[in-house]
Amino acid sequence: MQDQLFKKIENLYPEMEEIRRYMHQHPELSFQEVNTAQYIQSYYEKLGVEFRANVGGNGVVAKIHGAKPGKTVALRADFDALPIQDEKDVPYKSLVPGVMHACGHDGHTATLLVLAKVLYEARETLQGTYVMIHQHAEEYAPGGAISMIEDGCLEGVDVIFGTHLWATETTGTIQYRIGPIMAAADRFEIAIQGKGGHGAQPHKTKDAIVAGAQLVSTLQQIVSRRVDPVDSAVVTVGSFVAENAFNVIADKAKLIGTVRTFNESTRDFIAAEIEKVVNGTCLATDCTYDYQYEKGYPAVVNHAAETEFLIDCATKVPEVTKIEEGDLQMGGEDFSYYLQHVKGTFFFTGAKPETEGSYPHHHPRFDFDEKAMVIAAKTLCAAALNYQIKEQTKHEKSETLA
Amino acid sequence: MQDQLFKKIENLYPEMEEIRRYMHQHPELSFQEVNTAQYIQSYYEKLGVEFRANVGGNGVVAKIHGAKPGKTVALRADFDALPIQDEKDVPYKSLVPGVMHACGHDGHTATLLVLAKVLYEARETLQGTYVMIHQHAEEYAPGGAISMIEDGCLEGVDVIFGTHLWATETTGTIQYRIGPIMAAADRFEIAIQGKGGHGAQPHKTKDAIVAGAQLVSTLQQIVSRRVDPVDSAVVTVGSFVAENAFNVIADKAKLIGTVRTFNESTRDFIAAEIEKVVNGTCLATDCTYDYQYEKGYPAVVNHAAETEFLIDCATKVPEVTKIEEGDLQMGGEDFSYYLQHVKGTFFFTGAKPETEGSYPHHHPRFDFDEKAMVIAAKTLCAAALNYQIKEQTKHEKSETLA
Amino acid sequence: MQDQLFKKIENLYPEMEEIRRYMHQHPELSFQEVNTAQYIQSYYEKLGVEFRANVGGNGVVAKIHGAKPGKTVALRADFDALPIQDEKDVPYKSLVPGVMHACGHDGHTATLLVLAKVLYEARETLQGTYVMIHQHAEEYAPGGAISMIEDGCLEGVDVIFGTHLWATETTGTIQYRIGPIMAAADRFEIAIQGKGGHGAQPHKTKDAIVAGAQLVSTLQQIVSRRVDPVDSAVVTVGSFVAENAFNVIADKAKLIGTVRTFNESTRDFIAAEIEKVVNGTCLATDCTYDYQYEKGYPAVVNHAAETEFLIDCATKVPEVTKIEEGDLQMGGEDFSYYLQHVKGTFFFTGAKPETEGSYPHHHPRFDFDEKAMVIAAKTLCAAALNYQIKEQTKHEKSETLA
Amino acid sequence: MQDQLFKKIENLYPEMEEIRRYMHQHPELSFQEVNTAQYIQSYYEKLGVEFRANVGGNGVVAKIHGAKPGKTVALRADFDALPIQDEKDVPYKSLVPGVMHACGHDGHTATLLVLAKVLYEARETLQGTYVMIHQHAEEYAPGGAISMIEDGCLEGVDVIFGTHLWATETTGTIQYRIGPIMAAADRFEIAIQGKGGHGAQPHKTKDAIVAGAQLVSTLQQIVSRRVDPVDSAVVTVGSFVAENAFNVIADKAKLIGTVRTFNESTRDFIAAEIEKVVNGTCLATDCTYDYQYEKGYPAVVNHAAETEFLIDCATKVPEVTKIEEGDLQMGGEDFSYYLQHVKGTFFFTGAKPETEGSYPHHHPRFDFDEKAMVIAAKTLCAAALNYQIKEQTKHEKSETLA
Repeated sequence: MQDQLFKKIENLYPEMEEIRRYMHQHPELSFQEVNTAQYIQSYYEKLGVEFRANVGGNGVVAKIHGAKPGKTVALRADFDALPIQDEKDVPYKSLVPGVMHACGHDGHTATLLVLAKVLYEARETLQGTYVMIHQHAEEYAPGGAISMIEDGCLEGVDVIFGTHLWATETTGTIQYRIGPIMAAADRFEIAIQGKGGHGAQPHKTKDAIVAGAQLVSTLQQIVSRRVDPVDSAVVTVGSFVAENAFNVIADKAKLIGTVRTFNESTRDFIAAEIEKVVNGTCLATDCTYDYQYEKGYPAVVNHAAETEFLIDCATKVPEVTKIEEGDLQMGGEDFSYYLQHVKGTFFFTGAKPETEGSYPHHHPRFDFDEKAMVIAAKTLCAAALNYQIKEQTKHEKSETLA
Repeated sequence: MQDQLFKKIENLYPEMEEIRRYMHQHPELSFQEVNTAQYIQSYYEKLGVEFRANVGGNGVVAKIHGAKPGKTVALRADFDALPIQDEKDVPYKSLVPGVMHACGHDGHTATLLVLAKVLYEARETLQGTYVMIHQHAEEYAPGGAISMIEDGCLEGVDVIFGTHLWATETTGTIQYRIGPIMAAADRFEIAIQGKGGHGAQPHKTKDAIVAGAQLVSTLQQIVSRRVDPVDSAVVTVGSFVAENAFNVIADKAKLIGTVRTFNESTRDFIAAEIEKVVNGTCLATDCTYDYQYEKGYPAVVNHAAETEFLIDCATKVPEVTKIEEGDLQMGGEDFSYYLQHVKGTFFFTGAKPETEGSYPHHHPRFDFDEKAMVIAAKTLCAAALNYQIKEQTKHEKSETLA
Repeated sequence: MQDQLFKKIENLYPEMEEIRRYMHQHPELSFQEVNTAQYIQSYYEKLGVEFRANVGGNGVVAKIHGAKPGKTVALRADFDALPIQDEKDVPYKSLVPGVMHACGHDGHTATLLVLAKVLYEARETLQGTYVMIHQHAEEYAPGGAISMIEDGCLEGVDVIFGTHLWATETTGTIQYRIGPIMAAADRFEIAIQGKGGHGAQPHKTKDAIVAGAQLVSTLQQIVSRRVDPVDSAVVTVGSFVAENAFNVIADKAKLIGTVRTFNESTRDFIAAEIEKVVNGTCLATDCTYDYQYEKGYPAVVNHAAETEFLIDCATKVPEVTKIEEGDLQMGGEDFSYYLQHVKGTFFFTGAKPETEGSYPHHHPRFDFDEKAMVIAAKTLCAAALNYQIKEQTKHEKSETLA
Repeated sequence: MQDQLFKKIENLYPEMEEIRRYMHQHPELSFQEVNTAQYIQSYYEKLGVEFRANVGGNGVVAKIHGAKPGKTVALRADFDALPIQDEKDVPYKSLVPGVMHACGHDGHTATLLVLAKVLYEARETLQGTYVMIHQHAEEYAPGGAISMIEDGCLEGVDVIFGTHLWATETTGTIQYRIGPIMAAADRFEIAIQGKGGHGAQPHKTKDAIVAGAQLVSTLQQIVSRRVDPVDSAVVTVGSFVAENAFNVIADKAKLIGTVRTFNESTRDFIAAEIEKVVNGTCLATDCTYDYQYEKGYPAVVNHAAETEFLIDCATKVPEVTKIEEGDLQMGGEDFSYYLQHVKGTFFFTGAKPETEGSYPHHHPRFDFDEKAMVIAAKTLCAAALNYQIKEQTKHEKSETLA
């Protein structure tokens, strides 16, 4: 049966491409995706698939019920675009000045819509229920996931899968990661206020550079001594600026940095520890400070069993030529919120264009290999179908052994 | 006799003012003071005083021989101007665009010329010899002092005195300091080259900010542990720049700073120690570096006995209302070179204008209280005369006690 | 069938206890366990089980072949004792002065021997092969595991399971951990040689305390900046000694510490990085050093699937009342070497004595709850049997899905 | 006249030696010097010199009035001994078990008594007044100087001179120093309380070694950044002890050190700054602390003119073969208190024994070259006499110049 669905996906590739290109030409910014949401709704309407609009904002959630009982599997695609001017020279280039699908969400949406059609048409032979989560506003904090979850998009869901087309990885590659795959990426700013003066009269000053330097050194202890060694965290001071003449003692120093964590308590702990270090260091050096900590999305933390299951499923997709553990991705992704509620996994589907050099995501010339949408659709399809089988087997196995 | 000379100086104040104002209107940059030197020479020529021109460049050295035997006392005045546009609104404002006597060297020269006239006219009653050192190029390293000394301006000199009119101290004040009064002011630059990268992947980078911060901390040890506690030194990192986005790890950091010292061996020692610290820190943090150390003038180090003697002499000048230990001045001054060769002292003569707010030296609206030139002239005069008496007394005293 | 084996294990508890107590009374130090090894051989000889003696030293490896084809499952028990004087007041107290089974290896051996008997007696109904690895010398580096592996004890083995009776955890508890469960525990010593002197004359010294302090701070960067944040590592300076009078500057400082890592490349990397930091810091502070790094056992790193499988198996043991993720254990364990060659997992079986306060492992009054041996045996048994089923199911499943 | 007095001193050397040896045999501990004080009183009584006993405790102050008017010059000698067992093998060895003149105060007293006799006998030819301050309790804080001053020993005194026989410098050497010659030597203790734990679990601990190391580094800033560069100060951590097994995280660290300063405000400032650094560092590292600061004597700070004058005087003593600037001496000396009230200088008189190796002060085999007492007496004598001449000359000189 899986093979039949794979075949259908292949056959619907032209529709997938058409949808993607239409969306690419009509991008909408986060929280403003009214027409895109309407387009998705129309698609489901035309198909006859049950859906709910305006879920937590512009979100759309469709449900496909298999004829046989089974688990409820959610698949998610985001659909917002970015405030970037499309500089590509292609026929399907953005028609909206200064707005562009520069991250591939158009592809995610096309993939999920077509996969929905395939599943819907096969519903008589399917076990369980399939929830298509079309999420708005992934690119802009606080994101659409939170409000869609609050609005019930995960109700009854047993497992969720999501993928990101990845334009810097060769098409045919699936990248997974057990546990954290994308970190919580926060930002902090520390302004140290000393008392400037003449470079030759340190005793009349409070040297903000010496204080800041001390601070950078002491901050190292947070990761080296205070975070559980089996947890992961990064505290980086990326910018240290105290620009003055050579014969001056610095009045102030500005440090800006990032904290990356993979669980919430560590995240809050580090935010507090940084202030503890800043406060102590400033007391020791007689300076004052201003400290700002801004949270980004939490980490995307994949569940182990579901990730290993997804790996298995990916082996069933003929176009998948490489399955590998990917690098930890540091950009934010609000898929994290779904995984805080249900089991599941988020993975990368290689989609590197062949014809030209590949541009990174968020680049004005960003594009991706549209063929990869077939791979993404098949992998999600395999995950959705096999999850039913796996759960049934587990059920039977426990009966066998009992 | 001293009183008679003091009286003459008072009487010649109008000439002093005239000379100063002429020079103020005709300033010349360091090493280009041809007309100023010519002016000085003419003055001596007219007086009939023996002088030598083009000493070590544009320098002029005049000699006045007292009728009685005695010591040879040198007095020094510098005569170069600065590349600053005069913004004062006075009749004697600079006539040369972009060039200005913004440090008072015009006043130093007027003071010394008139004092020379007074001494010359009294030569029959004087003991010893008086050497008037008119130095070019004090404002611009390597300065004129070195070459004038090499050209013999200190030959036969027993002691040297110099003063700086000081526009931020009340007229009537003499500021002295035993030992260092103006520090050697050097400059260093350290460019740390790490390996930049993503703020979340420290292990793929060599964090130049962490290295630089470590460096700043370790540099503190030079003064706290390596320099003799009874010596004085300052190592200041005045500028620390590694400006990046918050989520980046710094590729490089640039530190610029100054070293202040009061003796040459400490100066060389610190220059070497900084590199030792930089080298070790970079090895420990896997970074590389570029280190530059540029020397300014050496410290002006006043001799103790001559300074105490000068204090005594200042008490004899009626207009002197306050004699105090001044703050260590951190600007460079190549009077330092003279004191490396002969005993002597350099002091500040308060010259704060009454009529308007005082501007610091090197300010476009800088001016000084011209009456202070009388005080400077009298103090130098008292030093010159009394030095003869002091030396004679010492001679007699040792005979008495023997 | 599992139930029948569980029943048999229960029935053989008296024999288990008897074996354990005999061994407890006759402990032998690592690499000297000749009689213990003989005892094990005799047991198998009597049973009629095929075994190989003197494997890699005093090791004994027995093999039980099930009647049906299947996988080869290895189970491991260590059997050496410690140079500790038994201070317990029990009838089965050690008869060897200064030598004691203070870590429970006697229990491990009793458990494995009885389990072997049960499996052997059921061999006609079993699938696959069961390899009983009786390892000598776990307590003393380099340990017996390495040489037994070199001598072929893992040949043909598909999976390995091992457990440690854990006297500080309640009987009924099974503690697992995916990935690292016991770290590589290395030791380092850094002797910093400065140049001592009078506390008031730092410039004549090279302050070893200042150098050592700097070193401790810079060492923090290894974990905070140089190790992959998703890897785990600890660099601890546990001892810092530079003991002197208050008015002295330290001639030397001695730092002793430990490094904990979970993979070999990180381990070697850190050993090298420490020296890099030590070298750079000593260059920056003009000291010299001696650096020693001694490796202990590598980390015990459990395989994810096998650990999850073990968790499943533990649920089948009626006496198991709690299955939980244990803390990372920091003591060394050369089970690590087996897991470098084959898949498997190492877990802790709670064995806290009820009758008296529990003493930690390696304590002279250490004892454990002998009933826990039944739980250990059943859990290993469940793992051994179900592994066959799991592998067969996987095989069938892949056929189903194909 | 000076020569005549010098001659007398020479002639009285046997008496000087006798006095010194008597005292050496009868040493008394600080604040318990009843018999020594009585001895001194008897000496003056017998001479017929006016004296006051029990000045501020066991102190004795004698006064010799010259026939002509003049200045009042004080000369000071201390007379307490140390709790050290005399291990020398000489006839004049201490007769008191466990008490010994191991610092030369016996010599100071003999010198001053004989000098008093010489001056008294020449009183008809002398100008001015001579105050002989025999001070008790120099070796034990708070010392005798404070209470003697409070009891009026400096009343009417214009200048004070004191010397220390110095057994490690060749006889014939006089060591002087303008400004500080002996520092204030204080002691501090910092006990850092962290939270100990297993070396592999830093996140469960508060690492006292890391905190202490940080502290040592930050303390460097006190001297490098907070004390006026032209002032002198030392902050030394002489002892850092946190002794533990390698695999432990330190629960506590103890730092002991010394602070050396040359003026009181810097001293108090540093004591406070250390606590500021300790407090801030402990807040930054989550540790707590106990901080103790114990003051020793203040610095002995010689006045410039009086020191230069003393140098001159020393040239007049035939036995003086070398006059040099001495090293800063770091031991405490409560002569400091006198110099806080009147002008004066404290110098070292070389007194290295020729016959045997020289032992440092406070050594059980300490001794000094008794001939040096003649040099000390003559130098003090020259200072006393010439001070009168100098002051008179100054007076006359000012008349001459007026």
